[in-house]
Amino acid sequence: MNKETYSLIEKYMLSCMEDSAHDKEHVYRVLYNALAIAKTENDVDYDVLIGACLLHDVGRKEQFENPKLCHAMVGGEKAEKFLRENGFAENYVEKVKHCIQTHRFRQNNQPQSIEAKILFDADKLDVVGAMGIARTLVYKGAVAEPLYSVLPDGRVSNGEGDTSPSFFQEYKYKLEHLYSKFYTQKGTQMAMERQQAAVDFYNSLYHEVEVSYENGKDELGKIIE
Amino acid sequence: MNKETYSLIEKYMLSCMEDSAHDKEHVYRVLYNALAIAKTENDVDYDVLIGACLLHDVGRKEQFENPKLCHAMVGGEKAEKFLRENGFAENYVEKVKHCIQTHRFRQNNQPQSIEAKILFDADKLDVVGAMGIARTLVYKGAVAEPLYSVLPDGRVSNGEGDTSPSFFQEYKYKLEHLYSKFYTQKGTQMAMERQQAAVDFYNSLYHEVEVSYENGKDELGKIIE
Repeated sequence: MNKETYSLIEKYMLSCMEDSAHDKEHVYRVLYNALAIAKTENDVDYDVLIGACLLHDVGRKEQFENPKLCHAMVGGEKAEKFLRENGFAENYVEKVKHCIQTHRFRQNNQPQSIEAKILFDADKLDVVGAMGIARTLVYKGAVAEPLYSVLPDGRVSNGEGDTSPSFFQEYKYKLEHLYSKFYTQKGTQMAMERQQAAVDFYNSLYHEVEVSYENGKDELGKIIE
Repeated sequence: MNKETYSLIEKYMLSCMEDSAHDKEHVYRVLYNALAIAKTENDVDYDVLIGACLLHDVGRKEQFENPKLCHAMVGGEKAEKFLRENGFAENYVEKVKHCIQTHRFRQNNQPQSIEAKILFDADKLDVVGAMGIARTLVYKGAVAEPLYSVLPDGRVSNGEGDTSPSFFQEYKYKLEHLYSKFYTQKGTQMAMERQQAAVDFYNSLYHEVEVSYENGKDELGKIIE
């Protein structure tokens, strides 16, 4: 890909980015992760991969404004329109669109091409490890959801089986289970390298609050007549 | 303190709570931390301590709506008014107000009473360790500030000396330096026990992004003609 093409696509991407958990730095991290994975795979079309990485979240704003919309679907269509209008070959447009539309966890819409698999893995790498924790917490702040739920008996729930949204619920429901869901060997390896940081953080946070509530409620019970 | 008094103050506290990083669970954590510290101190007036813990952040909303206001000052006045209107003794009102108004880092307005020192430490315990990381990230999400800044040369800043706000900037400017600022021995000890979790998380997150940007930019440079 030449510089002009890269800048053209990048400029369009930047014009589409807004909310903080899916900001432009996420896009660059996905691109950089994708390039690290691509190095270990054969027959990667870098033009397709780079275009798909830059454009993979251009539908975020639409989903944010209307949660019924799927940003992968909308984003694929927006990217298709943008690329067509800018004279990219039909074959290229279709390949990029496929990558974008299959980059979410969807049983019935999985990545087929190697570029699509790499984008999927590169995007998921941003939800594992310390970065996955950081982005989830930032998102919880943006939508004003709590860190944890308190059980009817006053103990802190560890998130397991929770039905109301919280950071611990998201960790137990989603973050904890990501590590087996990568398509490429390099993606899996990078995810594994980052796993311990996420596990340690969750355990530390849970321990801090759990001990605090247990002891605190005991003490309070002794003081309040 | 009897149950009725506790419930009366708690109810007023709950009516004042809104934004997510300083929600009601923060208030209970501060109360529980305070009780853990109080156990190791002499001559603690638990009525004052419990009242001050419950009411310490009732001025948050006012500061959130007008950042020029100090929530400790406003909160102290709101608590004073609430307690007076509900027939608490003047001596009690003054003691609780002192605790609330000195619970922030302010050179010229430091906690004097043991209850004020305990509240200060209990509140700071919620900014150290994994909880400090979590609450800072939630706040960054709420005010849409980024995780890190990218330097003019394209590397990720570790936050040191940054002037624009980010999670890394906040970590380097504030979170990293809290551990020597506690008044009580127990507060210092609890903070120290939680320190490693925060250090590890910051290091992991920085390592993840730093490596990703370094390698990614190199790779991209080779591909983009």
